[in-house]
Amino acid sequence: MNEKLDYIFRRRSIRNYTGEMLRPEHFEHLLQAAMAAPSARCCDPWEFVIIDNRPALDRLAQLLPNGPFLKECGGAILVCGDLKKAYQESLSYLLQDCTAALQNILLAAPALDLGGCWLGIHPREERISAVRELFTLPANIIPVGCCALGFPAAELPPRTRYDLTKIHNNHW
Amino acid sequence: MNEKLDYIFRRRSIRNYTGEMLRPEHFEHLLQAAMAAPSARCCDPWEFVIIDNRPALDRLAQLLPNGPFLKECGGAILVCGDLKKAYQESLSYLLQDCTAALQNILLAAPALDLGGCWLGIHPREERISAVRELFTLPANIIPVGCCALGFPAAELPPRTRYDLTKIHNNHW
Repeated sequence: MNEKLDYIFRRRSIRNYTGEMLRPEHFEHLLQAAMAAPSARCCDPWEFVIIDNRPALDRLAQLLPNGPFLKECGGAILVCGDLKKAYQESLSYLLQDCTAALQNILLAAPALDLGGCWLGIHPREERISAVRELFTLPANIIPVGCCALGFPAAELPPRTRYDLTKIHNNHW
Repeated sequence: MNEKLDYIFRRRSIRNYTGEMLRPEHFEHLLQAAMAAPSARCCDPWEFVIIDNRPALDRLAQLLPNGPFLKECGGAILVCGDLKKAYQESLSYLLQDCTAALQNILLAAPALDLGGCWLGIHPREERISAVRELFTLPANIIPVGCCALGFPAAELPPRTRYDLTKIHNNHW
């Protein structure tokens, strides 16, 4: 692995946290990173909900069976898309734009001594409606994914899952 | 902008290239970065087509009206997803997983002195079918987006499109 790309390889899915809470500047820097992502025709259809207190994280943990560690993490960011603002009001572009922003959050975390883990929401209807109800999201706002964040309780080594069988040269 | 996150902010959409071609190790490093992205349940449904010669780039430029600069770039990577391998054979997860990989390619490029530009394909049917025909993609392989790559003819300054109106605290 090329060491110059260490900032890519050190993004790992962190599921163990110290319990220390994120500070406001953490969220500011992570969201500056999120909104540096590209979006289709620069429509920037993303919307972000910061979750920065223990009771709210505990409630979210009850709704997302894939995120029991929300109870020990230091905060979370819910990434949503506004279907009315997405290019051509397309769900495909909305998903792509929001995912690029979410990936930027995950990649920014290690530089701030944080770790993160992507918790999938879309397309699971039960998670979408539960999150929609908890945060009173309007009908045009689609929750795509949630990023658990915090100070890692243990380090994971950089890695890639590079697989030559997935690479094709100039034709299939 | 936090300088520690410069590797995020320096990703800009590059549409002017010197014409110099990428070398094989560029593609290797970019694809190591791509496959370091997370994917739903680690299904890694992504597939990549390297386009590394001028005639193939010229043919692709004819199909993608959003990418006239493919004629001057130094290579491209087509990012596709295998619907049979995506978690729950879900198009939503496929789009999210492939986008995370594509975003990693774009973020890795500057560290290799390259620039890139995301060329949208999905959900436009005419682009999907044109690209499917050019690369003889099987029916279960969905082209999501193409990344034009090359040596930038000019530098763009780091930036974010940070917008406070898109941030919500603990509720909508």
